[in-house]
Amino acid sequence: MLGQLEPHDTGSAVKALLFDVFGTVVDWRSPVARQLAAFFEPRGVSTDWAVFADDWRAMYQPAMQAVRSGERGFVGLDVLHRENLLAVLDGRGMTAPPPGDLDDLTRAWHRLTPWPDSVPGMTRLRDRHILASLSNGNVALMIGLARFGGLPWDAILGAEFTRSYKPDPQTYLGAAAALALAPADCMMVAAHNEDLRAARTLGFATAFVARPTEHGPDQSTDLDPAEDWDIVTDSMAGLADALGC
Amino acid sequence: MLGQLEPHDTGSAVKALLFDVFGTVVDWRSPVARQLAAFFEPRGVSTDWAVFADDWRAMYQPAMQAVRSGERGFVGLDVLHRENLLAVLDGRGMTAPPPGDLDDLTRAWHRLTPWPDSVPGMTRLRDRHILASLSNGNVALMIGLARFGGLPWDAILGAEFTRSYKPDPQTYLGAAAALALAPADCMMVAAHNEDLRAARTLGFATAFVARPTEHGPDQSTDLDPAEDWDIVTDSMAGLADALGC
Repeated sequence: MLGQLEPHDTGSAVKALLFDVFGTVVDWRSPVARQLAAFFEPRGVSTDWAVFADDWRAMYQPAMQAVRSGERGFVGLDVLHRENLLAVLDGRGMTAPPPGDLDDLTRAWHRLTPWPDSVPGMTRLRDRHILASLSNGNVALMIGLARFGGLPWDAILGAEFTRSYKPDPQTYLGAAAALALAPADCMMVAAHNEDLRAARTLGFATAFVARPTEHGPDQSTDLDPAEDWDIVTDSMAGLADALGC
Repeated sequence: MLGQLEPHDTGSAVKALLFDVFGTVVDWRSPVARQLAAFFEPRGVSTDWAVFADDWRAMYQPAMQAVRSGERGFVGLDVLHRENLLAVLDGRGMTAPPPGDLDDLTRAWHRLTPWPDSVPGMTRLRDRHILASLSNGNVALMIGLARFGGLPWDAILGAEFTRSYKPDPQTYLGAAAALALAPADCMMVAAHNEDLRAARTLGFATAFVARPTEHGPDQSTDLDPAEDWDIVTDSMAGLADALGC
């Protein structure tokens, strides 16, 4: 890495694991649905909250695309989540809650449950690897999730660090540079083929962790690896096994 | 904060503690001197290594000033430390070690011992506060220090996050913004009056932690608080006491 110190260890083993978070490390659909229900049901508003969560999540990529395209300057995901919540409410003819409640509902994304294997597996992995988040979530959101779920990060990298959203190459390359590592010394860990494809193109090692219920029981995407990723598994324990941790 | 969610808790208590690291959380002079001696003495090179460490450290501010002034684009502190080490060696007519050894010596700054009160005090503080580094050290350096000393950070912020060096206002303001907090909700914790002065000017709360031997037994600076900082103490335990943790 130009301008960085040479890596201390010249072995070929991966030195850092960079994790996608939503869907890969934590479940978002059920926890968001549960929190929406807990707020709205006592106020007399009923719907299928899992579908509401899906609708909210469906606005995630288009909202980030406005930043990726340069149409809009960088804003953190908390802000996009709040805008998107207002849009979903509006689209359903529902009244927006007062600002304090709206912000707290937006922070439902700070209170997501890790998949049961995530924390034990990551704890094993951390003995021999640097662990960093490489999520599109902003720093405050990542801190919230780490505290809520006990995620053992060495550092929070990703979108807000580079002020760019995956799959913008800068998001990945900026994380490797911050770790003073070449991309080949870093492994992207994700439940999403597209995330791994972007990382592999830039020279990162890749691990696919299948999360076949991220989108609920009828999930149709990312059920299988779309390429011969370096590691294919279905849990962080499996990843730790594959890396000999 | 424009574009941020409103803080959840509207109490007046500080929510995040932002720490200066070199001198405040960790001792640098003795550990750097010890590592220099361990490398050079077996190679037949002797000198007062604490004075060498002082000389090395003395080039820290001028090197950052070139970035602050815009004379030079942002480069991380590891790079400046390596350049400065070469300059100190050259100034003393000493031969530079081979690149691998030079990099490893530069990483002496990744292997600094926390002051004895730092980890226990910070562990208490972390129960009720977000803890982030707000150092001029780069991310890889901060990760190295955290792993070496067991520092319980929620996030690594500071120079590389904003690509600016303290006391540039952006370094402080960018850290608060990443936490989605107003400066008044953040407390700068430092052993250096100048760091606290810059933070206070921007609206941060301030805690002075006296470290009267940072520069060795003859230290003449930062022995006392230069202003009425919000908290004045001489340990992280004292800080935890003052904050009721």
